[in-house]
Amino acid sequence: MSAPAISRFPVPALKEMPDDIRAKILAVQEKSGFVPNVFLVLAHRPDEFRAFFAYHDALMEKDGGLTKAEREMIVVATSGLNQCQYCVVAHGAILRIRAKSPLVADQIAINYRKADITARQKAMLDFAVKVSASAHTASDEDFSALRGHGFNDEDIWDIAAIAAFFALSNRMANVTNMRPNDEFYMLGRVPKA
Amino acid sequence: MSAPAISRFPVPALKEMPDDIRAKILAVQEKSGFVPNVFLVLAHRPDEFRAFFAYHDALMEKDGGLTKAEREMIVVATSGLNQCQYCVVAHGAILRIRAKSPLVADQIAINYRKADITARQKAMLDFAVKVSASAHTASDEDFSALRGHGFNDEDIWDIAAIAAFFALSNRMANVTNMRPNDEFYMLGRVPKA
Amino acid sequence: MSAPAISRFPVPALKEMPDDIRAKILAVQEKSGFVPNVFLVLAHRPDEFRAFFAYHDALMEKDGGLTKAEREMIVVATSGLNQCQYCVVAHGAILRIRAKSPLVADQIAINYRKADITARQKAMLDFAVKVSASAHTASDEDFSALRGHGFNDEDIWDIAAIAAFFALSNRMANVTNMRPNDEFYMLGRVPKA
Amino acid sequence: MSAPAISRFPVPALKEMPDDIRAKILAVQEKSGFVPNVFLVLAHRPDEFRAFFAYHDALMEKDGGLTKAEREMIVVATSGLNQCQYCVVAHGAILRIRAKSPLVADQIAINYRKADITARQKAMLDFAVKVSASAHTASDEDFSALRGHGFNDEDIWDIAAIAAFFALSNRMANVTNMRPNDEFYMLGRVPKA
Amino acid sequence: MSAPAISRFPVPALKEMPDDIRAKILAVQEKSGFVPNVFLVLAHRPDEFRAFFAYHDALMEKDGGLTKAEREMIVVATSGLNQCQYCVVAHGAILRIRAKSPLVADQIAINYRKADITARQKAMLDFAVKVSASAHTASDEDFSALRGHGFNDEDIWDIAAIAAFFALSNRMANVTNMRPNDEFYMLGRVPKA
Amino acid sequence: MSAPAISRFPVPALKEMPDDIRAKILAVQEKSGFVPNVFLVLAHRPDEFRAFFAYHDALMEKDGGLTKAEREMIVVATSGLNQCQYCVVAHGAILRIRAKSPLVADQIAINYRKADITARQKAMLDFAVKVSASAHTASDEDFSALRGHGFNDEDIWDIAAIAAFFALSNRMANVTNMRPNDEFYMLGRVPKA
Repeated sequence: MSAPAISRFPVPALKEMPDDIRAKILAVQEKSGFVPNVFLVLAHRPDEFRAFFAYHDALMEKDGGLTKAEREMIVVATSGLNQCQYCVVAHGAILRIRAKSPLVADQIAINYRKADITARQKAMLDFAVKVSASAHTASDEDFSALRGHGFNDEDIWDIAAIAAFFALSNRMANVTNMRPNDEFYMLGRVPKA
Repeated sequence: MSAPAISRFPVPALKEMPDDIRAKILAVQEKSGFVPNVFLVLAHRPDEFRAFFAYHDALMEKDGGLTKAEREMIVVATSGLNQCQYCVVAHGAILRIRAKSPLVADQIAINYRKADITARQKAMLDFAVKVSASAHTASDEDFSALRGHGFNDEDIWDIAAIAAFFALSNRMANVTNMRPNDEFYMLGRVPKA
Repeated sequence: MSAPAISRFPVPALKEMPDDIRAKILAVQEKSGFVPNVFLVLAHRPDEFRAFFAYHDALMEKDGGLTKAEREMIVVATSGLNQCQYCVVAHGAILRIRAKSPLVADQIAINYRKADITARQKAMLDFAVKVSASAHTASDEDFSALRGHGFNDEDIWDIAAIAAFFALSNRMANVTNMRPNDEFYMLGRVPKA
Repeated sequence: MSAPAISRFPVPALKEMPDDIRAKILAVQEKSGFVPNVFLVLAHRPDEFRAFFAYHDALMEKDGGLTKAEREMIVVATSGLNQCQYCVVAHGAILRIRAKSPLVADQIAINYRKADITARQKAMLDFAVKVSASAHTASDEDFSALRGHGFNDEDIWDIAAIAAFFALSNRMANVTNMRPNDEFYMLGRVPKA
Repeated sequence: MSAPAISRFPVPALKEMPDDIRAKILAVQEKSGFVPNVFLVLAHRPDEFRAFFAYHDALMEKDGGLTKAEREMIVVATSGLNQCQYCVVAHGAILRIRAKSPLVADQIAINYRKADITARQKAMLDFAVKVSASAHTASDEDFSALRGHGFNDEDIWDIAAIAAFFALSNRMANVTNMRPNDEFYMLGRVPKA
Repeated sequence: MSAPAISRFPVPALKEMPDDIRAKILAVQEKSGFVPNVFLVLAHRPDEFRAFFAYHDALMEKDGGLTKAEREMIVVATSGLNQCQYCVVAHGAILRIRAKSPLVADQIAINYRKADITARQKAMLDFAVKVSASAHTASDEDFSALRGHGFNDEDIWDIAAIAAFFALSNRMANVTNMRPNDEFYMLGRVPKA
């Protein structure tokens, strides 16, 4: 049986890709042991690929008031509500690893209000979900509530920007029928010895 | 650290339970190796406990036009949309086991339209989701569409009744803050040797 | 002209029913003067029939912090929002009788916020409607608000469980095209001399 | 005990009203045996009162492709979805009388798809409900579907205009807390000897 | 090329109209320099035309606690949410003129929360939008909030009635495909010398 | 009076910006005569600024099956539904210029179904709006419908990607309170002599 399609659109072979994109993909493969399909699916459009990952890394790979695990929580919570299979499965795996918790990703994907997270993290996700679903109603009261939980304005920008970036990402994954790699499903579920 | 609460309401000790309920719970424990929290949480109300599981078993443990795995697909798809953590985690585990697939439960919980299932199963879930979210619009056209996929009227009743029963179950789990057992998260993810 | 169908599915004749179900139906007929169609429609599935009415009676026929009329208010308010013709018409009749009020059922079915009920009853229906429409957002604040109106936790379980049970019931009635008996429309509208 | 308020706003006494308004109200009282509260509540604003009833009568008291009973069906179906207690109770009574049916008003108020009406009337209500809830999507296809049921363009204007007028009326009734007269609840439920 | 249609329905010639309607239209043309299409489209139904403009003028052409510009703000905000092209374009023009602001109409049509208006005006539009979208939830708390911004009960009636009237107007414009006159788009954008 | 704020967040001075960002902004100013506020607001985060505009230009400044005016139509239609003031006002101006039409941007912002555009363009916007509001339901049927209007798969990617990118952009503009420059409101409304 042939492997299931990972995109509704053509997926270029590694050798057909521009050098910088191929190099980035090989580096990811080296580090992760496999190539997450988002890299292959978006390689169909090299300029968009470069912008997408530049944006992604600017938001997700930085230090700051939010931990890397918290950034992934935002991805998982908003992607769950947007019914984005790729983003929940792939970033759920990353969240399990970064939070060193085998349970929290599934909990947040389904209903973050009942997840094993702090009140501060629930406030963060309340706002992220609001940005994702009804950003036009974002108000000074939202900013005050977040400050009351110890977030500063740079943190608030980060929360909003991550929710906004995955509003884009969720839509592209859903339209392209981007398929999560089988490898993601088990990542982070069993603590390393 | 104490174990996290499994309910907002009091949970009776085994020895305080009526004999028939304790016997049922011990039987489940014998078979599964642990007691799913839904049994403990609902034991707070013995009469409702008895009716709940009688209804559940009448719908889920029978033979018929739907396989047992397909019955679990209905639970997982509708519980995902209802943001019911307990039902997605627990029945996701059962679905993995019954479908002998480590991937399909997560796929269906997030977006069944993109899951590795048949067109017939997608039609089944289209209807189940409609019953769950807007049963007042169920129409003769829905019945015709399902018959076109080979479902007979008894199958259609089953689809509707499972979606309806978990409409109840999802609401009770969400109001009681019913916590999924940690054991469910890994069940069925690794094929037995 | 033949009588209109009361279900999309086959309705068994009394003599074809299991003894316990026939006995229950005859007892209802004896007491009410007619057989509410829900008994006939659900008799198509004896095991589900038994579980359904056991659950119903456990919630609706008991004493406790909620009066029987208040239990029916929950049914009528949530069934109205779910556009369930059978449940609004049948339980509207029961509510009129139990509340000894010819007006309150129609008022609650359309907009409980403007019904002739107490502030405490409106708070009860606010929560019932939330459980019916968005149980995943039920929170500690909801419990506090209800306690502020004098409800204890057992009452809150009752409110939630009734709303949850009729989430099931409304869906079955809508999918089966369950027809309310003509008798219900006038019941309780004219005070008995 | 004093009578319950019929409006959140001041209600003028008959003798304080402009002559034409008082005359209209007395004529209604003469004909109906009581004064429907909408007349008293809107008399607070004489110019709006005159325009409201001129508009109402232009749409509801005419002959044409829609019977008077069908016009009331539109009112009841859309007012039910708008949760307007006054309009459902008052126009439900008028519908019972005009349709000479004690059942149809309650059926339509809850779920017109399951009411004892013709396929043509269901198509009429499909469009009326669309105008009420999402008129911005009204399309040529809607007009074609209605013509397929024998409605001409003047009928379609009537359906839309009645749904639109009661969009106004429902909102005024809800904001003013307009109370339906007790008399309406029983009107048309018992056939006249 | 012929001019685009201004209505899905027949539009009468001026000479075919009843005298009072023709006179009103000629007066508007005299004052404005063109005939807004709403007059021509609604002239298809003279009685409804008369009631519509009587109602409109009673609400929009009066003095009171709301300025004429504020009344137009209500029209523009609610018509934007109802996706009514005619009402946003035509009343946007009137708002620019009455508010002597070239920017405020576009701002309010898209998101009034971010418009150059006062906190009091935002509270006014919060309520207007609530009446337009969910009047059945209008409550004493809404009245209190508005009084806190200095509105009295007559002002509140005005806000509600304007939102309610344009609920009607938006639906008629959308169903008739009422086309805004080209003249409206530029009106009030350039200050008069 | 001081100028109104253009962002909830700090806006860097030109001289504080990294050279490449300052150069890009000066080039835009040279070309347009003013600096659109989106450049200033996003300059608060240089890495995100670079990725944002790289992504934007990859989608909006290219040739292909969609004209540049059609790309702007997608922005205006989806941003209107997302209530994004900055995007509707700024891209409405660009659309007027690119389409050489003073009317079409306002029409599309309010209700594209009634705009002066082709059936093919309406199909394009139907899909764009679906991607913006419910991408999880995008299906093969959507692709077929678009192909029936002459769009190829690269065009469909473009439509989806533009809708997805502005899902991000709309959210950032709403959270930052990004203010449209006054200059945009009049651009393209008066044909150049």
